[in-house]
Amino acid sequence: MNEPVNRPKARRARGLNDRRGAPLAMERALIQRIAKVYEDWGFEPLETPAFEYADALGKFLPDQDRPNEGVFAFQDDDEQWLAMRYDLTAPLARFVAENFDALPKPYRRWAAGPVWRNEKPGPGRFREFWQCDADTVGSASPAADAEMIAMACAALEDVLNGLGHPYMKVSDRRLLDGLLETLNFSQSDAGRTARLRVLRSIDKFDRLGRDGVTALLTTGRKDQSGDFTEGAGLSDHHAARVVEFATGFLAAAGQGQDQNLATIESLAKELHSSAIAMEGIQAMREIHAVNMATGLSQDNWTFDTSIVRGLEYYTGTVFEASIATGIPGAPDFSSFGSVGGGGRYDDLVARFRGERIPATGFSVGVSRLAAALQAQDEAQADGPIVILPFAKEAVGECFRIAMGLRTELRMLLSEDAPGVEVYLGGGGPKAQLKYADKRHSPIALIVGGDELAKGVVTLKDLKLGERIASQLGEDREAYAKAREQVQQEVPRAA
Amino acid sequence: MNEPVNRPKARRARGLNDRRGAPLAMERALIQRIAKVYEDWGFEPLETPAFEYADALGKFLPDQDRPNEGVFAFQDDDEQWLAMRYDLTAPLARFVAENFDALPKPYRRWAAGPVWRNEKPGPGRFREFWQCDADTVGSASPAADAEMIAMACAALEDVLNGLGHPYMKVSDRRLLDGLLETLNFSQSDAGRTARLRVLRSIDKFDRLGRDGVTALLTTGRKDQSGDFTEGAGLSDHHAARVVEFATGFLAAAGQGQDQNLATIESLAKELHSSAIAMEGIQAMREIHAVNMATGLSQDNWTFDTSIVRGLEYYTGTVFEASIATGIPGAPDFSSFGSVGGGGRYDDLVARFRGERIPATGFSVGVSRLAAALQAQDEAQADGPIVILPFAKEAVGECFRIAMGLRTELRMLLSEDAPGVEVYLGGGGPKAQLKYADKRHSPIALIVGGDELAKGVVTLKDLKLGERIASQLGEDREAYAKAREQVQQEVPRAA
Repeated sequence: MNEPVNRPKARRARGLNDRRGAPLAMERALIQRIAKVYEDWGFEPLETPAFEYADALGKFLPDQDRPNEGVFAFQDDDEQWLAMRYDLTAPLARFVAENFDALPKPYRRWAAGPVWRNEKPGPGRFREFWQCDADTVGSASPAADAEMIAMACAALEDVLNGLGHPYMKVSDRRLLDGLLETLNFSQSDAGRTARLRVLRSIDKFDRLGRDGVTALLTTGRKDQSGDFTEGAGLSDHHAARVVEFATGFLAAAGQGQDQNLATIESLAKELHSSAIAMEGIQAMREIHAVNMATGLSQDNWTFDTSIVRGLEYYTGTVFEASIATGIPGAPDFSSFGSVGGGGRYDDLVARFRGERIPATGFSVGVSRLAAALQAQDEAQADGPIVILPFAKEAVGECFRIAMGLRTELRMLLSEDAPGVEVYLGGGGPKAQLKYADKRHSPIALIVGGDELAKGVVTLKDLKLGERIASQLGEDREAYAKAREQVQQEVPRAA
Repeated sequence: MNEPVNRPKARRARGLNDRRGAPLAMERALIQRIAKVYEDWGFEPLETPAFEYADALGKFLPDQDRPNEGVFAFQDDDEQWLAMRYDLTAPLARFVAENFDALPKPYRRWAAGPVWRNEKPGPGRFREFWQCDADTVGSASPAADAEMIAMACAALEDVLNGLGHPYMKVSDRRLLDGLLETLNFSQSDAGRTARLRVLRSIDKFDRLGRDGVTALLTTGRKDQSGDFTEGAGLSDHHAARVVEFATGFLAAAGQGQDQNLATIESLAKELHSSAIAMEGIQAMREIHAVNMATGLSQDNWTFDTSIVRGLEYYTGTVFEASIATGIPGAPDFSSFGSVGGGGRYDDLVARFRGERIPATGFSVGVSRLAAALQAQDEAQADGPIVILPFAKEAVGECFRIAMGLRTELRMLLSEDAPGVEVYLGGGGPKAQLKYADKRHSPIALIVGGDELAKGVVTLKDLKLGERIASQLGEDREAYAKAREQVQQEVPRAA
């Protein structure tokens, strides 16, 4: 291959990310631990392909109004449109509909993998990210939603390992539907579009606040870049009522020993004229009862009408998971942003089969969770032990030592054994030691001509060396003395 | 959401696969074990995105002559072409070129993930499949190739766990280049195209045999479907010489105590007039020496000139891993098809940077390896323990039992603890027990009205039940008697 005339530029594509080393290992360990909890609860693994026929995935993304509909799509050579998955739920619906007869019912599965969204990239906002989901398909019972909530708590507790505790906000979309019913929202297509706009307005409360949301609920809103988002067309009075609902004021009377239950019953009084709202209330009551059985208290979950979730396909229970420290109500309580969420989507499989297949699920935003944990655990992990062939003819000997050392360390330390590697670059001693530093190696084993002749290995404690160097500065004599502490010759094993 | 008028058909896209349950879990465990070996050898994890700018990936696939070039590609909204990765090596080259200064040199990384090829799907031939790779970038030493070979053996040995042993076939592309040099192949573009055709012809020896390969080396070949593949344009005499090389006849004289070394030296005599071939010979000699140090014998590897590999980017050492039983030469020896391979690709990073960055790597074909292992391990794994609420009011109690049981089992059995799940469908006792069978549950715990009242749980041994049912057939009386063996009431823990 000759040198190309037009050399391509080495750059990753817009909005995508490379991850490596310790942070990536940590993210993977997270997924493994969460998956283990899912499996403890009887969920089996499933892996569907990265892309699907576009019509099978459907269009349920919050930003479906953009021209590209928020997904990456391309045409197959038989002209059919393929789209990369934007979540793990839509492919699950396709899988269940395709394999319905062969599956146990209810069918419980977990899945982990990247998903792709064709969105405007921004700082910390990537077009590829990982999710780790669990779903139960074929159960209409609120107990299945409650199980999701309890399992999400168990999984988060497992990975948090004492650094804060999981905190769930739970609501039901039918409550808002009921409220809109009392406001005489029509069931026409226009009404459904408006309902979706109301949902998405509420979902933006954190970001836009009361004024922004009120604008979106009524006449629309222009953002800083000048882009205009159409409003849901509510009157000022109705918008105020929706804001009251979303901020919890409608049910603010709820007080008592069990505040969640009191709030639910308070809202029941408010919305009793709506049948659909009362279905949501009944589901919340049943979830409350199962939460008692699984040991979730008011420290772990709250009934919160501000939770609606952005995806169109949810039909009932919705919930959002965050990480909290302290106890709700106490002065030291704080809760970090959402690390996952889910809810009930009873119509997603019906898209294919006609008949309704009720389903509920939970999704962890892996990168978000990893970021939340990383902030609390900054220590730099040790790299592998490196073996440095200071003389070229020592390479074979270095391999022999590496093979033996790996076996020995694995016997002694099992899964915790550090890696062992032989330096294979072309550099001399200085470059080799610099390499060991870059690898965060705790120990280097040096085999040069001297060592080969004497049948020894020089063992260099790099962590100790680093500490000493940072204290001694430029003092050469002290350095030579310290060298003895850091470096020693040991005989080679047979 | 009303029922859509045009219901989409639930079908996965052509040439793609869903995987679930035990086989998927097994495949994932494989990857974890292989990755652990890679990390033991000092390789750190890397994850690059699923797609890249098309020019950054380049075009090195065997079937690049097809109109779509073998990759899935689509345009970003800024008109730039993106392509899904077809392997894990091309993205690595981009990553290294982009982050060169920040990386330790040599840079060792492992990666696992799906790759996509836009090929004609066929039975067992998928357009998405998983690879698990290790690569060393920045070492020109044949010791780095030998390390790949030794590590590949260590990883395969670990997952095989006694079911056969890894077997590596090793060669060097420069040997064939040298042979073509002695046949007066030109270095022009036309010569390079012909050289690539020669490579790919040899790579098809397993599938097409001597006659098919000879046709491809000379005037071309029409396959059964009528498709014509152009030939490399060699004369009959030259083609015969290439076939002789690929079938090992050129070096057949190699015999002696160490047959690999003898074969290398025999080929050295044959190709001594070619400088490029002698570079390959020298690399093979050095690899042979390191193989001695890492403990690889002729039972584990062979020098085999039929190995050339299909990807264009290899420049030197190439090798292929298979799984063997018995000892080479012995009558019971057999070797299953390739489960992975790799080699040296010194020019791939140079595409971006101009300067040459030598590199070598190994890739496991995860699905292939899993299939090879699965054939030897057919036992159906146990599913989770299921708790069946025969009465609707028992659901809360079932959750209480499940929470306690999970904690207890995990304390007793750690990672091997079976899952525990509560049945949440709407079915009665019969449907619930059928569900437990479908989940391959070893034990069901039943909580109905009776059990609730008496404060007990009925424990049903489903595996024992299954064995008895298969023996008793239709005998109802014997069945009633056997029932006592299978089913018993146990008091509930407080």
